[in-house]
Amino acid sequence: MPTKRGPYAKSDQRRQALSRAALDLVRRHGHRNVSVSDIAELAETSEATVFYHFPTKEALLIAALAQHDDENIRAHGAEAGAIAEMAARAEAGVQRTNYARLYNELAGAAADPTHPANEFFQSRWERSTRVVATDIRRLQNDGRVAESVDADAAAHILLAAWEGLQLQWMQGPPFDIGSLLEWHIRTVLGPAALD
Amino acid sequence: MPTKRGPYAKSDQRRQALSRAALDLVRRHGHRNVSVSDIAELAETSEATVFYHFPTKEALLIAALAQHDDENIRAHGAEAGAIAEMAARAEAGVQRTNYARLYNELAGAAADPTHPANEFFQSRWERSTRVVATDIRRLQNDGRVAESVDADAAAHILLAAWEGLQLQWMQGPPFDIGSLLEWHIRTVLGPAALD
Repeated sequence: MPTKRGPYAKSDQRRQALSRAALDLVRRHGHRNVSVSDIAELAETSEATVFYHFPTKEALLIAALAQHDDENIRAHGAEAGAIAEMAARAEAGVQRTNYARLYNELAGAAADPTHPANEFFQSRWERSTRVVATDIRRLQNDGRVAESVDADAAAHILLAAWEGLQLQWMQGPPFDIGSLLEWHIRTVLGPAALD
Repeated sequence: MPTKRGPYAKSDQRRQALSRAALDLVRRHGHRNVSVSDIAELAETSEATVFYHFPTKEALLIAALAQHDDENIRAHGAEAGAIAEMAARAEAGVQRTNYARLYNELAGAAADPTHPANEFFQSRWERSTRVVATDIRRLQNDGRVAESVDADAAAHILLAAWEGLQLQWMQGPPFDIGSLLEWHIRTVLGPAALD
């Protein structure tokens, strides 16, 4: 990515500092216990500046989700390992209670397309499905997944099941989400996918 | 179930009339456009009576979800067909826009165990998983699903994938949820499960 200079670069930096502060505070305290002024304080700026970049607390919370994904979803060209690490990531995901509660609450609210988080979730699905399908094709090229498996359908269903399982785990009672996801991967992609 | 008499029976009837009215209005207008007084009017009672049975609008909305399930989830002994009809039900489910939006919003919020809908979703998962696992065992007895399939794990993952797919469908863009679920059922249970 080309490096921006001047006022736009500064504005991007400010937005990212605010997204990081929002994510940090959500993780530590839970989104219900975080105020816009807490976020402004951690990012060393004023509430007026926060509202200039993010008109509502909800916009800041959506930016926190996007920041988390930027740190966690694999970049283009770095998809290898998405299948191998899926179960471990699911296990880690449900342990991040505060983050997961925010994620699930906004995901459910975004079932209404007029909700401000809707666009974020639409592009998140597209991005995640592409990463997982690319890794499945890599496993097919390596001979570890049969060519007959529809990589796009498999990616779609593996991610949908993970989504449903995380939501259910958070609602409770807990269960072994990692083992169930590994069982699912072996069932959908064949046993050699996780060798 | 024994028939109750006297004041308790009347109270149950009143609660059910209110749950039905809430569900009816949610389906027609969407939960954001329904007020407690609309529900009282349709159930031909007073707002005070509504609040006696359901202290908040949210409690009424949860009762509407429960009412929907009572009409739709198979009873004990009537599990046959749960697998055969899953894809068609998923297709019908995403077309019930107003109901699905309420369902997904409350499901996401219930990822916080202190949310009033949490208990409803916990028992819903338990009930649905039991119905689907029972139908899978029936298919195993009929020789249409291999004995080696873990019926509980399969039921769990089929329902989790449906949950994730419905949420994603509602967020948009739409896709062929019925075909994807049929593909999933054949992949997890074997091709004869849907013969």
